[in-house]
Amino acid sequence: MDDSSDGGATAGGTKKKPSAAAAKGKATGKGKATSKAAPKAKESSLLKQKSPAEFFAENKNIAGFDNPGKSLYTTMRELVENALDSAESISELPDIEITIEEITKSKFNTMIGLVDRERVDEALYDDFESSKAREKRLAKEARFQETQAKNAALGKKVKDTPAARGKGRGEASFFRVTCKDNGRGMPHEDIPNMFGRVLSGTKYGLRQTRGKFGLGAKMALIWSKMSTGLPIDIKSSMKGQDYITFCRLDIDIHKNVPHIHLHEKRENNDHWHGAEIQVIIEGNWTTHRSRILHYMRQMAVITPYAQFLFRFLSDAAEKNLTIKFARRTDVMPPVPLLTKHHPSAVDLLLIKRLITDTTKPNLLQFLQHEFVNISKAHADRLIGEMGPDFSAKTTVNSLTSQQLVRIHQLFRQAKFDDPSGNCLSPAGEYNLRLGIIKELHPDLVATHASSPQVFEGHPFIVEAGVSIGGKDVKQGLNIFRFANRIPLLFEQGADVITRTALKRINWSIYKINQQQDKIGVFVSIVSTKIPFKGTGKEYIGDDITEIADAVKSALKQCCVQLKSKIVKKLQAREQQDRKRNSLKK
Amino acid sequence: MDDSSDGGATAGGTKKKPSAAAAKGKATGKGKATSKAAPKAKESSLLKQKSPAEFFAENKNIAGFDNPGKSLYTTMRELVENALDSAESISELPDIEITIEEITKSKFNTMIGLVDRERVDEALYDDFESSKAREKRLAKEARFQETQAKNAALGKKVKDTPAARGKGRGEASFFRVTCKDNGRGMPHEDIPNMFGRVLSGTKYGLRQTRGKFGLGAKMALIWSKMSTGLPIDIKSSMKGQDYITFCRLDIDIHKNVPHIHLHEKRENNDHWHGAEIQVIIEGNWTTHRSRILHYMRQMAVITPYAQFLFRFLSDAAEKNLTIKFARRTDVMPPVPLLTKHHPSAVDLLLIKRLITDTTKPNLLQFLQHEFVNISKAHADRLIGEMGPDFSAKTTVNSLTSQQLVRIHQLFRQAKFDDPSGNCLSPAGEYNLRLGIIKELHPDLVATHASSPQVFEGHPFIVEAGVSIGGKDVKQGLNIFRFANRIPLLFEQGADVITRTALKRINWSIYKINQQQDKIGVFVSIVSTKIPFKGTGKEYIGDDITEIADAVKSALKQCCVQLKSKIVKKLQAREQQDRKRNSLKK
Repeated sequence: MDDSSDGGATAGGTKKKPSAAAAKGKATGKGKATSKAAPKAKESSLLKQKSPAEFFAENKNIAGFDNPGKSLYTTMRELVENALDSAESISELPDIEITIEEITKSKFNTMIGLVDRERVDEALYDDFESSKAREKRLAKEARFQETQAKNAALGKKVKDTPAARGKGRGEASFFRVTCKDNGRGMPHEDIPNMFGRVLSGTKYGLRQTRGKFGLGAKMALIWSKMSTGLPIDIKSSMKGQDYITFCRLDIDIHKNVPHIHLHEKRENNDHWHGAEIQVIIEGNWTTHRSRILHYMRQMAVITPYAQFLFRFLSDAAEKNLTIKFARRTDVMPPVPLLTKHHPSAVDLLLIKRLITDTTKPNLLQFLQHEFVNISKAHADRLIGEMGPDFSAKTTVNSLTSQQLVRIHQLFRQAKFDDPSGNCLSPAGEYNLRLGIIKELHPDLVATHASSPQVFEGHPFIVEAGVSIGGKDVKQGLNIFRFANRIPLLFEQGADVITRTALKRINWSIYKINQQQDKIGVFVSIVSTKIPFKGTGKEYIGDDITEIADAVKSALKQCCVQLKSKIVKKLQAREQQDRKRNSLKK
Repeated sequence: MDDSSDGGATAGGTKKKPSAAAAKGKATGKGKATSKAAPKAKESSLLKQKSPAEFFAENKNIAGFDNPGKSLYTTMRELVENALDSAESISELPDIEITIEEITKSKFNTMIGLVDRERVDEALYDDFESSKAREKRLAKEARFQETQAKNAALGKKVKDTPAARGKGRGEASFFRVTCKDNGRGMPHEDIPNMFGRVLSGTKYGLRQTRGKFGLGAKMALIWSKMSTGLPIDIKSSMKGQDYITFCRLDIDIHKNVPHIHLHEKRENNDHWHGAEIQVIIEGNWTTHRSRILHYMRQMAVITPYAQFLFRFLSDAAEKNLTIKFARRTDVMPPVPLLTKHHPSAVDLLLIKRLITDTTKPNLLQFLQHEFVNISKAHADRLIGEMGPDFSAKTTVNSLTSQQLVRIHQLFRQAKFDDPSGNCLSPAGEYNLRLGIIKELHPDLVATHASSPQVFEGHPFIVEAGVSIGGKDVKQGLNIFRFANRIPLLFEQGADVITRTALKRINWSIYKINQQQDKIGVFVSIVSTKIPFKGTGKEYIGDDITEIADAVKSALKQCCVQLKSKIVKKLQAREQQDRKRNSLKK
């Protein structure tokens, strides 16, 4: 039957006109599948195809690039996280330098070859005031100052002068963000696509990593293209390479391919290995300074075997900052291991993909090798249960759609051992404790690491720490969240960790006053899959019971430990009071 | 200079070996930009290119497909929202039928051509118990029942029997989700790509719409491919077409193209127009039933001119549901208008795209027509301010990168009128009030619509309603959120509306007790851009000051109105009490 999408409108030729009977709706759906490219439009088609780069450029909110300040934060954190993954992948103690350099408007204009211009038509500008408006404003400010002076005299609260009108969006601030690491570097040929092609990535497998979506550095490049137009600079060298790759590129958003300006090899006399990435973007240091520094401090807490050098450079010398986070230990936790999927949590597409990629041609070996926790004996029994049309020697490529559904169904109903947590690499209770003490200097601290748990076929480990006291700690709950050993600083209210600490722990039964005590709550979750809600990696949703339960349980364990310490302290104090009182008599 | 990425490794030929001087790092970065496709890999490249369909399949969490129950919810809501947009785009009072039909496992197996099988190897299954384990369990349950009986006798709290072990992930539940509307339909040729090609979409412009990312129905198709493998059925007819398009297709995930099973035209004797979409997916009615029904009720609240028929069909007759939401008014709000971008909020990429797509070749007309709030006179002045290398007749296609940056900078600093809200279509205070009364039957209600505000160059309008009392209303704050007239039911804690209502309104000064009174809080925001954090459209982030301020202000206005009504009520009651007391004497 002609699959013509063109009813009866074309003239003559050999095309059959569908009979009246056919036109009345005789369905021929026998599952004949043909791949068709976009058909030639007869009616004027308004359909356009966006490239993935365009999609993420237009929807940068979902990638953490909500506004310039947040974009500066996200750019920095993505580069830092890639750098850490890179160093750890070659078991190298990470050594990371992050520099954020403020670029004045005239320096920026010089960089892009623009001539600085004086304002000519003043009234065009947002911050312009006519002389009349100026008089009004000065008069208003004078009256305000008077009122404040009166308030001060009466001992009342004094307010700040309200911000000048016409601030609006104002001038953009530009920053050069540089991140240098001693990691594995990148293959020379791959660099353009790794940065300039959205959705390209290294061979996937299941592993606990910081980077997850393969978008980080590409989003930074896209943001730079949107806000400055300037290209990204990449230096890289791999162990054993006698050269340093230098690459300068930007991205052709419409085609989603890199635009290479420069791609060459240079001498590598110092036998350096690693990568150095430099990008120039619009940002906002004022609004996001404290979160950026907070991130760096927390990264140092959770990664004590790494060394960080953070610098902020500006023409205004008083803004300059250099912070060195020294390594506190030379012991690196084991590198997370590549692992296979758990059969209970695969979907049809994944099964198909595993079949396409597998090196094991027959069903028995496929089951054993492409999934965790299927031994040879188990695989044999599963194949037996699948039905008479399956055998150990069935070639997986020959499986029909129905057979795949059959396998999928059996996987869902059959019993499999939970995945072990052996492929995971948690922060380590010792490191967590060290970090808490260094960060908060508390009076008491207790930590707990849970055994591996499972959600949706993915293993995960929760480690928690709770501290009491500390000179500079705020009263109430101070919550620090980590997922795959990266600090999460945004969307705190929605996060499972915050929700659990705030609502599901009965602090008072552990002699802890939720509002008045200075409580530090640290929770670190590692897994082969962190259920982030957006590619911005901002928080872990509160809708997965297994995770919420594990967090609650770990926090309670810490509280139990603290309770006995608190009780001892109280008893000691009571004893002292009694002594004092008896002495007075 | 040879852009060779292949240092000195190839033998002989005409390739120049870079001189020692060049190798020492002479940068030739003159901005020579060449588009390169993925270079042939010399070292073994592990880089793979994912299609957008693969990306969203692997990261379906960010699109609202976290788990089967949520996927059922998201599938339904995406289809309903598309249907509403479609009907409104032809100014047709929407008439929408949603059917969720539970499909038993054996019916499902028949549909995919799978033979139902009995279990053979019982011990393989997750819910299997050895006889020993069964004895243990029965004994444990017996002991538990004893304890509960004792508790009941002593008047203590009685617990439910704990759920049976081995529930695990269990069997999947399947559903056929059908959505039929009387909207505009779709051009015959476009249908395969509209459903089977991720990131294809209709010509973009700036408009207030419910659908935003162009992903909705495609994600449903991707989810069906992951969970059932069954294709999607689409019926469509446009006004004036004398045929109904029938299309059955699935998606080739790897290539991101549709796989057409059937694509034909059938007779349209009833002159029907609209679309009917049917997809078969894994879901979970038990976990998400109440949210699905909640969504439908809230959709009816905010869209009183639409008629909805919702049906849940199951073999278990007691589960069946039919709910009809009748139209409460024939007056449709104006359709949202297509509008242009505001110059203060464009980025370099957007400017380039507008230049590529514009029909206005010269700069003066380009400025006037491609942006809002630039009159001819204003455009003239802006061009003058840009510099001597700009004129009204400059062809926009000839603008250099530097010139684009100059325009971008001027746009940021110059003063433009705020966008009017004329292109927006709010819910309407009358409709909001009507919906609140119908939903909650409260004692008091007050509503307020703000004037249009701006954030990041986008106009937005906030409408709010606050109600007190109502027989079935829970004590405390009951918050209902709407963005572009779609209900938001998830991630409530992170949403700006919830945060504002919970923390930034001092309810007590309006004589409202935040914990004890039965308070309904309704907030609807419409805009040309809703700053969602993920493509799942679940909540509006709390990090945009303009929106938070506007929500707070609108709620306060409602509270002020309520306060006077409450005060009057209290006074009336006091009068009555005084009368009663004086009568007693």
